[in-house]
Amino acid sequence: MKTSIATVCLSGTLAEKLHAAASAGFDGVEIFEPDLIAAPESPEEIRALAARLGLTLDLYQPMRDVEGVDEDAFRDVLRRAEAKFGLMQRLGIDVVLCCSNVATATIDDDEVSASQLRRLGELARGYGIRIAFEALAWGRFVDDYRRAWRIARLADHPAVGVCLDSFHILSRGHDPAAIEQIPGEKIFFLQLADAPALSMDVLSWSRHHRLFPGEGSFDLTRFLTHVVRAGYTGPVSLEVFNDTFRQTDVRSTAVHARRSLRWLEDAVARELGAEAGFAPLPGAGAPAAFDFVEIKAEDTSSIEALLETVGFTPRGKHRTKPVTLWTAGAARVVLNEQHARGLDPHLAALGFAVSDPAALTARAGELGTPFAYRRTYAGEQALDGAVAPDGTEIYWAPQGDGGGEPAWAAEFEHGASVRDSPVVGIDHVSLGQPWQVIDEAILFFASVLELPTASSTEVASPQGLVQSRVIQSPDGSIRIPLNVSPPILSGRRAALPQHVAFACDDIVALARAARARGLSPLPIPQNYYDDLAARFDLDDAFLATLKELDLVYDRDADGEYLHFYTATVGDLFCEFVERRGRYDGYGAGNAPVRLSAQQAGAEPADIVRA
Amino acid sequence: MKTSIATVCLSGTLAEKLHAAASAGFDGVEIFEPDLIAAPESPEEIRALAARLGLTLDLYQPMRDVEGVDEDAFRDVLRRAEAKFGLMQRLGIDVVLCCSNVATATIDDDEVSASQLRRLGELARGYGIRIAFEALAWGRFVDDYRRAWRIARLADHPAVGVCLDSFHILSRGHDPAAIEQIPGEKIFFLQLADAPALSMDVLSWSRHHRLFPGEGSFDLTRFLTHVVRAGYTGPVSLEVFNDTFRQTDVRSTAVHARRSLRWLEDAVARELGAEAGFAPLPGAGAPAAFDFVEIKAEDTSSIEALLETVGFTPRGKHRTKPVTLWTAGAARVVLNEQHARGLDPHLAALGFAVSDPAALTARAGELGTPFAYRRTYAGEQALDGAVAPDGTEIYWAPQGDGGGEPAWAAEFEHGASVRDSPVVGIDHVSLGQPWQVIDEAILFFASVLELPTASSTEVASPQGLVQSRVIQSPDGSIRIPLNVSPPILSGRRAALPQHVAFACDDIVALARAARARGLSPLPIPQNYYDDLAARFDLDDAFLATLKELDLVYDRDADGEYLHFYTATVGDLFCEFVERRGRYDGYGAGNAPVRLSAQQAGAEPADIVRA
Repeated sequence: MKTSIATVCLSGTLAEKLHAAASAGFDGVEIFEPDLIAAPESPEEIRALAARLGLTLDLYQPMRDVEGVDEDAFRDVLRRAEAKFGLMQRLGIDVVLCCSNVATATIDDDEVSASQLRRLGELARGYGIRIAFEALAWGRFVDDYRRAWRIARLADHPAVGVCLDSFHILSRGHDPAAIEQIPGEKIFFLQLADAPALSMDVLSWSRHHRLFPGEGSFDLTRFLTHVVRAGYTGPVSLEVFNDTFRQTDVRSTAVHARRSLRWLEDAVARELGAEAGFAPLPGAGAPAAFDFVEIKAEDTSSIEALLETVGFTPRGKHRTKPVTLWTAGAARVVLNEQHARGLDPHLAALGFAVSDPAALTARAGELGTPFAYRRTYAGEQALDGAVAPDGTEIYWAPQGDGGGEPAWAAEFEHGASVRDSPVVGIDHVSLGQPWQVIDEAILFFASVLELPTASSTEVASPQGLVQSRVIQSPDGSIRIPLNVSPPILSGRRAALPQHVAFACDDIVALARAARARGLSPLPIPQNYYDDLAARFDLDDAFLATLKELDLVYDRDADGEYLHFYTATVGDLFCEFVERRGRYDGYGAGNAPVRLSAQQAGAEPADIVRA
Repeated sequence: MKTSIATVCLSGTLAEKLHAAASAGFDGVEIFEPDLIAAPESPEEIRALAARLGLTLDLYQPMRDVEGVDEDAFRDVLRRAEAKFGLMQRLGIDVVLCCSNVATATIDDDEVSASQLRRLGELARGYGIRIAFEALAWGRFVDDYRRAWRIARLADHPAVGVCLDSFHILSRGHDPAAIEQIPGEKIFFLQLADAPALSMDVLSWSRHHRLFPGEGSFDLTRFLTHVVRAGYTGPVSLEVFNDTFRQTDVRSTAVHARRSLRWLEDAVARELGAEAGFAPLPGAGAPAAFDFVEIKAEDTSSIEALLETVGFTPRGKHRTKPVTLWTAGAARVVLNEQHARGLDPHLAALGFAVSDPAALTARAGELGTPFAYRRTYAGEQALDGAVAPDGTEIYWAPQGDGGGEPAWAAEFEHGASVRDSPVVGIDHVSLGQPWQVIDEAILFFASVLELPTASSTEVASPQGLVQSRVIQSPDGSIRIPLNVSPPILSGRRAALPQHVAFACDDIVALARAARARGLSPLPIPQNYYDDLAARFDLDDAFLATLKELDLVYDRDADGEYLHFYTATVGDLFCEFVERRGRYDGYGAGNAPVRLSAQQAGAEPADIVRA
């Protein structure tokens, strides 16, 4: 599959965009006209630069308002077109995108539009150029790809075909199945964009909120399947107008964009098999479980003290590194003091148990993922890993035999013997995300780790609204809420703290025992319990227990959720949760209370009473 | 007019919100329930804090889904209500906001809703509480204030009335005139919010994009006029859900919020005269002209060199300060090296010529504007001024006699005699705005200086989209485009450079003369001129002149616009413009070319060849 990207997707100057697209592995680019107009390089220089970088220049875009006009206006269209066709010759581009008329159309007649496209096509042919006619979703008269194709067919000229853009088709809810009725060779160009489900005017939606494939709610797999079945073999190009991507680092956006196409290619290859003409990614499904969390700091003793209070066992020190392992049930916490001078405790890495680590490594490589590196000594388990967009390292290792401990755990020595603990495993891990990386993070987890987005919500904090998007494996064994920081906090490394939520079977016993051992939970205000009593008809004794232990509570039709939080140390806090019945959420209604309590206690906290 | 604000408008904890509201001069607050639930203070403590701060607690909100339900569900409503009424007694609040049912309504019947409100009202009466029933714009059955009033009237209970919210009424396009048919004493509460004209689902619009009065597109003057005429005398309260205000500094947001009500009060007082029962602001209309711009730096000689090349006259040094004055026609540039150690050139202040400076000072004071301060020695002209939300100082002084120089100019001594210059005045001044202050800036200029927003546009830069909102006096003599930086740049003092555009009568002569004297204009790429030729049918000689002089060009039905830019020095660049005919814009189509050229030349530039 030949890949391309419109320069409007990327930040920077035109030359910077070309460099970034080439180094991310794109085969070509679409030149967005304003990028060329603002460039100091001549068209010949741009052409030569692209050639040196190994990029083809696939499309010049857009020409606007070319059809459906009176004869006077059409003469001006031809004059403009001639200037642009000359420019395209200098660039060496042979396809131009012509959008359906938005501003100047006065004639709503397929025959008129077809005849004007035919004349434009005839002019273009003289320059060796072909016209790709596209129905904009907000075209004055032509706003449906089926009508654009009807007009192009009527034009009946070898230099006139259509451009298909997934946004213009799917945003209007038009069925893409009819694409298969267009002969592949008359589809002159293909543009792809995903988008979130928003109900707003389609022009603003298109201009500001498009996303790369895999990040929104459009079914692009089905869309591209229809296009492949139609026999289209040209470039598959991204045209994503997005306020964030326009301002973020051009190189990482280009890599992220390229990843979205590889992900989509995989999905279509799996849908169509050999018919697709391109190969699926290696893959072994979503990870089976959390393997470990790694907390890094110059001094991890505050975390050790916390883990003690909830019954974790110190399992030993790593043979060759200043790293310790603590376990409780299936929960493994690695405390890392290596290369951590001056660092406060923070969540540095997540480990996943996977069935086929080598396949996942190959998959990550094909998706252009930056790899994480760990030095490994003789006899030690090598861990492969990747760096997530927020900087968290993600490692993967084989599952332990029969669900037991993974092989790498044996590298930790001189530990205590395993104690009983009410903690049974890791329920979820929340990662605070800078606002500008959330879309890339969604795609990263979906494409590299096959962890899709399960839900999305919004909670109020004293510092602004926090959008929370939950990444979850199909069986719920892996749950990662991604919490997006309000922009005002951007620039701070971990604007929102990360947190690890441990699962337990009996939260009341755990909370009581931990208190007895000195743990100070995050204090929950009395007002919260008064409201709880008003919302739910709770037993007085139960309510008193919640209050005594600073437990918070949620309930839905499927079950109940009881949890409590520790104070924040460094960039991190812990949560302990008990799910009753089939409750599947995260107590989002309690998050504002937690966020306020954390704000109130924002001075450095003693997580455990000394 | 008694003023109030909902705590949901502000960032921070509940106690911080109360402090900020009181110190901004609000009379009371509405307690937004989640703020209370998350607060560590008891209801009694909140009540006592508010009393100490001199704030009344005007409303508890919201109770949801109280009517239109079956008898089983209604019993649960009464149980919840009883708990909340008890809480309200502890807070000392006697009005509760009950919204029309969104989630649980099953019965679409005025009689049923009225009867349930009557029973709720009867329960409330026992607690000394009144029910303010409000039609949410997205209520399941009740979504129109006229229907809410019909139901409240049917309920026929002294403890049942309505709450009016401008957003819910105006967002639906409902005519507010019928408010006058509601007896004032049955309007139990009034909430005001403005909003930009957006076409999106009304729930998202309401939850994220509300604005304070004067910042959006609703006609709140007319709205409040109807409410006053209905005989309402209760609090006028702001309820503004806004993603930005929720994260910005609570104190400045509260001041800004209070200013919006004073502005609105003024507008209604002018509309209704004595009938309003409150007084208009002092005021003398919009400023008549730019008086001066002040550029500050440790060393202003690069700006002096620039002004030389375009024919400004050095008019002398200030008697007592390291400040010089340069003039050309009506353009006055003050160069200030006082207290400027380490500072690069930046636009520090704007001066306006006004007819009644004392009235403007009084007006600014009533609007809670932070004052700007200049030390004044004996015999010097005292300048009053204010600090705009972006930190720019704004001063005002009397106009010079017969349109001549202002009195303060006489404080500059030992200058050269006035030369002829093609520069005739200041056309406009563009101020880069951090994204989080733009709404406050719009209100600041509209309320303090009576400069409304004339237009709004968006231009692409290599670092993201720039929203540009133009503040303009009615006669066009004052024009200030406010350019909003993409959030990625936030934190940088002047993320987008400021610029001063000087008007001239003959831009070609000016550009040529300035070049001869060594000015290097911002270079405009050849591609721009190729596109210009394709867009407009321009004379070859004219095009060659534009290109020779790095002039950019725009044209509309009313006239033409020719301009060129200097390089950026510090946080500032200059522009020189010639308006032909009645062209009223700013060449927005040329801005992306300018922004790219500035990005390309982002290394420190020599504005004038040495």
